[in-house]
This record gives sequence, structure tokens and C-alpha cells, in this order.
Amino acid sequence: MTDALVFDVFARGCTSRETLEHATGRWGALTLAALHEGSFRFNELRRRVDGVSEKMLAQTLHALERDGLVHREAQPVNPPRVDYRLTPLGEDVAERLTALIGLVEGRMPEVLAARRTYDEAHAD
Amino acid sequence: MTDALVFDVFARGCTSRETLEHATGRWGALTLAALHEGSFRFNELRRRVDGVSEKMLAQTLHALERDGLVHREAQPVNPPRVDYRLTPLGEDVAERLTALIGLVEGRMPEVLAARRTYDEAHAD
Repeated sequence: MTDALVFDVFARGCTSRETLEHATGRWGALTLAALHEGSFRFNELRRRVDGVSEKMLAQTLHALERDGLVHREAQPVNPPRVDYRLTPLGEDVAERLTALIGLVEGRMPEVLAARRTYDEAHAD
Repeated sequence: MTDALVFDVFARGCTSRETLEHATGRWGALTLAALHEGSFRFNELRRRVDGVSEKMLAQTLHALERDGLVHREAQPVNPPRVDYRLTPLGEDVAERLTALIGLVEGRMPEVLAARRTYDEAHAD
């Protein structure tokens, strides 16, 4: 590679848009935020990310693993055991993400007030 | 309301999960990041958020307006003109979001290297 690559999520075909979607998608965001709390086994993670199906969680973890955000570690024990944890890059992404999540959770009273105002104004 | 409300995106039915999805969904994230650059008219925004359809952008803006993140202002001019800009709450959300986007864009060389490693290991 001779030229520096520039990544831009605003460009339709840019791969960075894909990775952003993996990290911020419905289940990707919650999975990264959960793993920010520590390592999880698959079924633990499934309980933590309330509402995710087995299939969707498996797909989400695969995409995050392929992008280098999550590390999957098969423990050499019997019965077999697989742990998932964040990579250093995943930690950096999860840190930004939990800042965003914390802000949204904390400001929900404002959001709900805005919804009431909006719905009243659009009631007719 | 007598009790303090606690919002938790991990809880399946919590409204904060819905607002998080509006802010981080495929088009919501790019729309907020674009409006972080300044106010836009609808068609300008449609060009900036490369690939979004008219219908999806309208839906996205409605959800963000209802949640109190985006302000829609119909200018009293002829021909009619509508400007979209972030509310103070929208600015706070967009700030966290652009931090996340900037990180993802900047670390894409690591993501692409991880993908190559993953694809080689799973080639057989």
C-alpha cells in the first residue's frame, strides 16, 4: 500500500460504514457494552443482552470477531467452554459507546418530555 | 411522578433502547453526525448522507425530532424552506457519536488486518 487510506462513513461504499454498523447495530452495541463489563460465556451474554435470539447473538459475535473487536477463546476444558472478551480495539470502541449509552439513559426524561410535546402538536 | 426513573438499555422493554436505536441506527447515526456540522435543508442532508432514500431520511428525521434530538424549522419564506438542526440534547448525543465515528474511521487499518487474519483462519 503506497497511499494513505482515508475512511469516511459518509461515503456509501466505505468499509468504515460497515464496521460502524456492526458496532452500533441493535445487538452489536449491547454486546460490546456488555463485554465492557468483563468476559462472558455465550449463554451468559445471551441473558445479559435481554431479548437477543441465539442466532442473532452468534451472527453479531462473528461480525465483531471478524472486525477485531471481540476475541473468542475456546478453553481447553471438558466440557468445552468458550469465553468472549473485548480486544484492546474493542475496549476503545466500547468506551465511546458506553459514554453514548450513559448519556442517552441519563437524558431519557428530556426525550420523553420531547415526545409528549411532539405528540400533542401532531395529535390532530 | 414520585419515584426517580431508571433507564437501562439492557432491559428489553426500556424506552432508552428505542432512543439508542434511533441515534445509532444505520441512518440516524449519519444524520446526527451530519447535523453536527451545521444546519441542513432536507435535500442537502440527503446528499450528505450518501445512499439514504427520501423515505428513509424523512422517517429518520421524524424519529429524531420526536425524541427531541433534532429541531425542524419551517422558514416563513416563499418558496417554503425547512431547516433541520440539532437541539442542545442532540448536540450532546452527536458529540459522543462523532467521537465513536472518528475512532472507527481512524482504526480501520486494524479492522481490515483483523478481517484478513480471520478470513485466512476460516478459509478451509
